[in-house]
Parts: sequence; structure tokens; C-alpha cells
Amino acid sequence: MSDRARAGTVKHITSTQNPVIKAAKALQQRKARAESGLFLAEGHKLIVDALDEGWPPEMIIALEPKSDEEGVTKLAARVRAQGGDVIFTNIPVMEKLARRDNPQTVIGVFEQRFAPLETMTKGTVVALEGPRDPGNVGTIIRTADAVGASGLILIGAATDPFGVETVRATMGSIFHVPIARTDLARFSSFAVDFPGRIVGTHLNGTVDLRDVPAAEPQMLLMGTEQSGLTEAAASVCDPLVKIAMAGKADSLNLAVATAVALYELRRPFLP
Amino acid sequence: MSDRARAGTVKHITSTQNPVIKAAKALQQRKARAESGLFLAEGHKLIVDALDEGWPPEMIIALEPKSDEEGVTKLAARVRAQGGDVIFTNIPVMEKLARRDNPQTVIGVFEQRFAPLETMTKGTVVALEGPRDPGNVGTIIRTADAVGASGLILIGAATDPFGVETVRATMGSIFHVPIARTDLARFSSFAVDFPGRIVGTHLNGTVDLRDVPAAEPQMLLMGTEQSGLTEAAASVCDPLVKIAMAGKADSLNLAVATAVALYELRRPFLP
Repeated sequence: MSDRARAGTVKHITSTQNPVIKAAKALQQRKARAESGLFLAEGHKLIVDALDEGWPPEMIIALEPKSDEEGVTKLAARVRAQGGDVIFTNIPVMEKLARRDNPQTVIGVFEQRFAPLETMTKGTVVALEGPRDPGNVGTIIRTADAVGASGLILIGAATDPFGVETVRATMGSIFHVPIARTDLARFSSFAVDFPGRIVGTHLNGTVDLRDVPAAEPQMLLMGTEQSGLTEAAASVCDPLVKIAMAGKADSLNLAVATAVALYELRRPFLP
Repeated sequence: MSDRARAGTVKHITSTQNPVIKAAKALQQRKARAESGLFLAEGHKLIVDALDEGWPPEMIIALEPKSDEEGVTKLAARVRAQGGDVIFTNIPVMEKLARRDNPQTVIGVFEQRFAPLETMTKGTVVALEGPRDPGNVGTIIRTADAVGASGLILIGAATDPFGVETVRATMGSIFHVPIARTDLARFSSFAVDFPGRIVGTHLNGTVDLRDVPAAEPQMLLMGTEQSGLTEAAASVCDPLVKIAMAGKADSLNLAVATAVALYELRRPFLP
């Protein structure tokens, strides 16, 4: 959208029907994100995280600052210096762009980035087979960041990592963790050549997670919320591990299970 | 509501305006739950979990079965035998009772149960100071169950553990894990007499979670999503621990941090 060789422009838009606003709003839908290759990130913190990470927004849409108590003027200058456009607008437009009662004062429009699957061979890689829940995927990206995982692979019919709710749940880690996406067939080939072990969690796993000796590179492969790993995905894992369960719960939440496994597998590598 | 000395009754209701349906619908609101002492649990699995746990519903509201492929007839018989009423109804009523696009075929109305704070002295107890997010609290109840924690204490202005979204996220563990609620002053007194150590997680914690020797009874105390433990709550903890962080994330999701800490603190006690 913007020409990154020059500083971005500043516009003032007050109509909720403006095509730029409507196009930004449309990015709440997966179809528009897929067609444009863009996504939304809400709030000052996420936009600063992105700028710090060398991932400047194409555009920010911000409430026209009355004074600068929110630091929007400084943020806008940083965005423009990196070639992004700045649109100042009013409360009705910000409310239109929000999906919550409490709209943000600034929203960024960013280009999606996917990493090549072939780069996912170092450190500890997390792979998720067909996760459905945006909150879970966002939380897993945040946890992967915190635990120092090197990347995330989304396999098959997974929720869009660049969806609004997912990005929100990452708390900025969407800009830190490389993400690759692939189908199961291609993943299976990749898994054969993966230079380390692939640990799958499975309710019928025979190895206790606590007994897996730590070694990198390694991959943690997790199945869906509803039904765990498919047989095809489980077949590339060695070992298949179980997470110890002491009570009456049938299973753990996917983001929780992934976190417990990641902290265990990264245990000796953590500071 | 029902007289547990006799079998429950069966009624057929087809109007969304029926007072029983309106009263059930109102239980989506915290006020109506506080006034009535009741709550809703959606779906066949949760109601079976409750019956298995000796926590029969006051009432179930179910789609009138065409055949019995959903096992509703059998479930209704179990509910009635334990003194609960059964209301058969139609799709418009079930849609009115649902907050999602995909309504359940059965919803149970249950009496809330809170455990006395004084009973929270055995095994591993989880205490949460003022958690806001229903999904987080539900997920923590599910994790507490899975890890064999003995109970949950909610301190101060916490989200209602019997809210619809929370109960849904527990996946049935709401019926397994005793829950006490208290204010910070009463909790602080209780903490002084608690017969084991109280482990608090804190971004400024000086002890690494992995270095805490395992011992029960113990309590894990977690702060809010936004700002962690208050000073007053942190002051009852010894040790204050930090969870190792390797990447660029500022913090972990509350449910994730609680899970990682619980699995670490229960590590030698798990099967």
C-alpha cells in the first residue's frame, strides 16, 4: 500500500463509509485478509512491538489526538518515518473498527508474514494440527515466544493466526514468532527430514512427558482441541507422550497442554 | 426448586415467554445467579459429570427427543430419579437459552456450591486474586482438576465461577473442584495460619519456580491478568517465584502461568 522509500502520508477521515475505513473493517473477516495479505493489530502496545521488531504498519488509524497524553503523535511520527500512512479519525469510525465495547484509540494495518516451512529446523519448534480456537492459537504464540521457541507450524485447516482475536491474544508475540503453514501431506514429508525428534502429545501416549530427555532441535506436535492428533500426524511422532493427569478431568485445554509440554521440553534451555 | 425426596416432574413448554424459561435465561446474568444461588451448565457431558459427582440438577431443559439418538430420555430418567425436574421444549426455546449460534440440546440448572475457606488446607490449593476473564478462570478450574489440586480460592473482585462461559471452559471440572471465595482481608488472616508454604508468582520473584522443593500442603497464589499480585497479597507469599522467560514476551497468559506453576509444584506428586 505505502511506498516505503518515502515517508507515509497523513489523512483525516471522518466518515464511516470512507473506502479506506471499510477496507480496514473488512480485515476482521478471513476472506478479506486472505485476499489482501493484510491484518489488523489493535492498540498502542502492539504497534510499538511491531515497529521495534522491524515490522512497520502499512497504516495506522488513530483517534485524532486532543492533546498527546496517549503518545499518538510520537507513534504516528515513527510510523510515517518507516513509510506507513497515518489516518486520524473520530470516535464513530473507531467504534466501527472495533468489535468490542471499548474501542482502542489506535489500530494498525500490517502485512502478513509467513515463514517458509523449511526454516523450521532449529531450537524448539511448535506444530499444531488444525487448531480451531483463535484464543488458543494466540495464547500458544504468546507462550512460544515466552519459552523461546523458534517458530510455529500450523497444519491443515487451522484458524487464521492473523485473525483479530488471535492477534489480540498474542499480546504482541505475533510480531516475534515466525509462523509457517502447510498441509498434512507436506508436513509429513518435512517431518521425515526434520533433524531432531518430534514429540507428540497423546492421551494414549506411553512415555511420560517428564521422562523425555531434553535435546534440541526438537518439535512439539499437538492435535486439535476436540480430538487430538490424527493417526497420520501421530505416526510421525517419536515419542508419543502423555501429560500426567491426577484428577477427574478428561484432558487439558490445548493452550495449557502446549504450555506445560513446552516448559518441560525447554526446561534445561531456559535461563 | 425441586423436592429431592420425590422423583422430579416432567413438563412440556413451548413458549419462549414461559416464566420458567425466562428465569433460566436470566441465569446468564450474574445478578440473577447471585439472587437465586443457581447456575447453568450446557450440554450432555456436563450434566452427566454432575450426576456422577452427586450434584444433580434442579432441572434440565432439553429439546423434545424425536428418537433417542442423543440419549436424552436416559439422562432425563437419571435426573428425575435424583429429584430434578425435566422440561422438554422446542428449538426456539433452546435458541433463546443459548448465547451461541449452535445451541445445545440440553441445559441443566444447578445449585451453586461454595466450600468454606477453612477447608482449603490440604494438598495443593490454588488461589487467584481478582481474576477477570471467565475463560481463564474456567480453564484454571479444569487444570486444577487435571493436576489433582484440592481446591480453588477466589479472592476479592473475581469473575463469577458459575458464569456460563466459565462453566463451559471448565469442561465439567466445575463439579470436581471445591471453590471458596473470600475477600483479601479474610484471606490474609487465613494465609497466616495456612499449614504450608504459599508460593506466589511475580515478575520480580527472586526464586526460580524450578528450584522450589516440592512439599504439600502448599498454596499457589496468582494475581490478576493485568497487574499481577497486589502488594498485600504478595506479602503473604514465601517464596515469590518467577517463571523462566526466554523470548520477548512480557508475560504469560494467566491460565498458562497457573498451569505451568501447578505442574511444577505438583511434579513429584503426579502419577
